Amino acid sequence: MLSLFKHHTNGLNCEKMENSSIVYGKNSVIEALKSSKRNLNRIMLSKALRVDSKIEEIKDLAINKGVPFVFVEREKFAKYTEYNHQGVIAFASPIKYTELDDFIEMHRENSSLVFLDGVEDPHNVGAIIRTCVCAGINGIILPARRSALINEVTEKTSAGAINHISIIKVNSPVNAIQKLKDNNWWVIASDHHSSNNYYDIDFLNMNFVLVMGAEHSGISKSILNLSDFKVKIPMLTDFNSLNVSAATGIIIYEYVRQKLTAEKKNEQR
Amino acid sequence: MLSLFKHHTNGLNCEKMENSSIVYGKNSVIEALKSSKRNLNRIMLSKALRVDSKIEEIKDLAINKGVPFVFVEREKFAKYTEYNHQGVIAFASPIKYTELDDFIEMHRENSSLVFLDGVEDPHNVGAIIRTCVCAGINGIILPARRSALINEVTEKTSAGAINHISIIKVNSPVNAIQKLKDNNWWVIASDHHSSNNYYDIDFLNMNFVLVMGAEHSGISKSILNLSDFKVKIPMLTDFNSLNVSAATGIIIYEYVRQKLTAEKKNEQR
Repeated sequence: MLSLFKHHTNGLNCEKMENSSIVYGKNSVIEALKSSKRNLNRIMLSKALRVDSKIEEIKDLAINKGVPFVFVEREKFAKYTEYNHQGVIAFASPIKYTELDDFIEMHRENSSLVFLDGVEDPHNVGAIIRTCVCAGINGIILPARRSALINEVTEKTSAGAINHISIIKVNSPVNAIQKLKDNNWWVIASDHHSSNNYYDIDFLNMNFVLVMGAEHSGISKSILNLSDFKVKIPMLTDFNSLNVSAATGIIIYEYVRQKLTAEKKNEQR
Repeated sequence: MLSLFKHHTNGLNCEKMENSSIVYGKNSVIEALKSSKRNLNRIMLSKALRVDSKIEEIKDLAINKGVPFVFVEREKFAKYTEYNHQGVIAFASPIKYTELDDFIEMHRENSSLVFLDGVEDPHNVGAIIRTCVCAGINGIILPARRSALINEVTEKTSAGAINHISIIKVNSPVNAIQKLKDNNWWVIASDHHSSNNYYDIDFLNMNFVLVMGAEHSGISKSILNLSDFKVKIPMLTDFNSLNVSAATGIIIYEYVRQKLTAEKKNEQR
């Protein structure tokens, strides 16, 4: 019934839209517009903005995708001061998570996953997703509990990368890892107690899931017990404290190095 | 004269102390206490703190080093709410920068430097210093202008790593790079226009300085012109946007990989 009175209920309608997911900042909005995974409802731009090439790009993309945009007085942004929005905010449908079963079905060979076990800082999650997309990782698994899920901060920190990778939310980390193992995935756990260095692993010709733990507590024991390989990042001083985002980048780029080096060798044959 | 009346000028004295550098958070204070490079004036702990092993460590280290500490009411921390202090704040002498000439004198062989050209976010600078200390890099060069210098945020983000590495502040980046070249250093610039991948460089048996640029503008042209090698981090998707802190970690850990792999080969001979 309510929809019949939509034109009379502007206030309600606005509120509903503003309860949807917010995408802020020029790059994040551009990436959300480019993504087929996001449905943007409308874009709000500040009249005080200097129109640069990125704003032009936002306008062009919005027109192409049929997303309404409006230039508003700067005051309209007052309630969003907690976000570093650069005068650009889009109201979007929330990110769509991928089902683990669907992911497994679609990625049967040489597939790569990163599993974040208890990484609670959304800045770290965003930065890791950004690096994963650059490295061509196929998906990220986030536990529904004890982990930062995708929110505005993650999206902004990822520079919009969350729109370019499968993000899988799982209720039971142990069940998810077991299911991956049953489907021919190898589990690589980052564990600083290990005696193997991360570059001693051969990442090629297999499906793998790299498990990264929280900075202080590490990977939970139940998952560590399920892992096929444990690897550490060697420390050259006794200052043993890599940030989880730096650590993930270091390990997955070793996979990239191995992959590109092998491809180059094959080409030269 | 003033010092004679020190006991009458408590307010003035306190103010002076509080204008000194602030170190906050348990780990940062522990690292500052352990470092021979920092001079701590006093430590303030909250009475509301649960005394855990880290607090015990702070007390032990402070007693050993003769640094006074005091447990105060939680209200005393009210003016420091901008810092994530965990109930621990130390008032310290500012970090001592190393002179480039002194560094060169002390590091003549197989020496490694990271030069941050215009990296303005103190969180990135802190995270990079943290990774550099883990990787055994000998020093960090920061330009006095157009760069984040060492402040409370850098120190906290670095988890205290700034106390474990030489930090060199230079007024002229170009003169500094030229001086390093004149002293047998090789200049490696991270430049995403390069056709060489970072892992194609042989980092061993040389002094090198790795130059990393700001995320958007990259390395300044005058420094790029002085570089001996330009390297890129390959992207496996068209999402070309690594965070500078992740990028630095990836390249310097390739140096670590080469170094440890060579050492292992030598041992096996």
